[in-house]
Amino acid sequence: MTTFTFDKLVIFGVGLIGGSLARALRERSGAASGGRIVGVGRSRASAERARELGVVDDVAALDRDDELRAALDGADLVLIAAPVAQTGPLLERIAPFLSDAAIVTDAGSTKSDVVAAARAALGDRIARFVPAHPIAGRESSGVEAALPDLYVGRNVVVCPLPENRPQDIARIDALWRATGAQVSTMSHEQHDRVFASVSHLPHLLSFALVERILGAPDAALKFSFAAGGFRDFTRIAASNPEMWRDVCLANREALVDELDGYTAVLARLRAAIVAGDGAELEAVFARSREARSQWQERGGRASGDTAPK
Amino acid sequence: MTTFTFDKLVIFGVGLIGGSLARALRERSGAASGGRIVGVGRSRASAERARELGVVDDVAALDRDDELRAALDGADLVLIAAPVAQTGPLLERIAPFLSDAAIVTDAGSTKSDVVAAARAALGDRIARFVPAHPIAGRESSGVEAALPDLYVGRNVVVCPLPENRPQDIARIDALWRATGAQVSTMSHEQHDRVFASVSHLPHLLSFALVERILGAPDAALKFSFAAGGFRDFTRIAASNPEMWRDVCLANREALVDELDGYTAVLARLRAAIVAGDGAELEAVFARSREARSQWQERGGRASGDTAPK
Repeated sequence: MTTFTFDKLVIFGVGLIGGSLARALRERSGAASGGRIVGVGRSRASAERARELGVVDDVAALDRDDELRAALDGADLVLIAAPVAQTGPLLERIAPFLSDAAIVTDAGSTKSDVVAAARAALGDRIARFVPAHPIAGRESSGVEAALPDLYVGRNVVVCPLPENRPQDIARIDALWRATGAQVSTMSHEQHDRVFASVSHLPHLLSFALVERILGAPDAALKFSFAAGGFRDFTRIAASNPEMWRDVCLANREALVDELDGYTAVLARLRAAIVAGDGAELEAVFARSREARSQWQERGGRASGDTAPK
Repeated sequence: MTTFTFDKLVIFGVGLIGGSLARALRERSGAASGGRIVGVGRSRASAERARELGVVDDVAALDRDDELRAALDGADLVLIAAPVAQTGPLLERIAPFLSDAAIVTDAGSTKSDVVAAARAALGDRIARFVPAHPIAGRESSGVEAALPDLYVGRNVVVCPLPENRPQDIARIDALWRATGAQVSTMSHEQHDRVFASVSHLPHLLSFALVERILGAPDAALKFSFAAGGFRDFTRIAASNPEMWRDVCLANREALVDELDGYTAVLARLRAAIVAGDGAELEAVFARSREARSQWQERGGRASGDTAPK
């Protein structure tokens, strides 16, 4: 690992994700050198906690032009670490104060919508925006939950735009590698298809199972006999409703495609059950078990989810 | 806990479930007194291992009339602890050797099909058959995996038939309570609806997700980015394919009803996503999270599944 060098990193939203990045750069031995880290919150008070904890050096309020100008003055790196729906408004707010030297990146769990919002907000300065998605989370949120090692061994997906300069992409790549993460690159369309499939759809399906049981006249009886399989299957139904509402809407195109493909598999299994086709059921189940076991043996993803809870 | 007294318990299929019952009666302090325990296997050799381990006192081979007659002679309790699809053939095989004093019970994870098979096999002696379902399992199977404490704190559902005598139902209730289990009673129809909902459907949905990803041209990429949510959601897709094939077919009516109800919920969520109806999505997700959290707080089911893996 080579040391990552920066002058000034401005983080919009110093919660679990932004705070952990700041702590990784500061506290991981040899990760980064030099540079001030500024935290910007909706209000000064919301960022102040991050400074009290030593996560950032300075703070600024989003609604104060003078503070925002000072925060971004001399910044070579800007991270948007806020809910994806806020990416557009935030970039619009920041744009007038951005220097030409600054590379802007984000940490949103969907990318096509973020890219569209960034294009609208930044116009012909879109080249400076390098989208990314660190795949890490914890059950707790907020800057108090931030950890210097949150990203160690985790995946970060960078989704370069055609307009991005290679050196800017390389810089975001280096930023995340400095946290101990593994960095991959794919298009934002592919990113959204992949995560619709392995993260967004499972969350939707898990919420839907609980909703289905809730709608039954004997819901209480059913819950009282739910056991280990239900527990594992619905663990992600304990996720944040606002966040998953936003993810479902932000990634609606890829998610609806995945949902339709999944519904087609269910229809195939239903037909096999009705027809008493045990061979078909066993073939599907055996194939799934084998693939799941291989995934597990390859190390799966030991922990962390596609987004903070 | 009062001591459970029996003369002779004959267990057909001394694997995890049958073996753990035997060990519980023998090894749990004060659980049971007196009585021999006989294990019957497809062949003598398959039961012999249970005797070597001290789980049963005697063994018999299913295909030997003389051994079967001796095994069932004087038996006051008979447990069928074999895959549900074998319940009918086993009861037919046993029927000629059953004394009038014997109460027969089972451990199958579906009940309506077991009751139908038992009625066909036992005819007007159906009154002596008291169906039951111990909800416990481990990842490992076989008599080597049997534990004296497998049932402690677990649910056992007894599904009495209209023909059953109250004292026979009470005896099966007492048998399972002696293992440390909590015993509930419901009709076999209700049992099958409950477990279709909280166990069989989730297994089907979990297998289906892996099957869906396997069918994608970029399956390898998708698996490589699957994380914690996928891991939890698909843990039950590592379950035994033959067993789940049998469960799906054995409980097909209730399972198809549940699947249709679930598909209707998915259609509602799909419509909300397409319409951009964030309020509806958030309402469903929030309701599900709340119900899931309450379930967890009530203690959920700390471990164990609806059937051995």
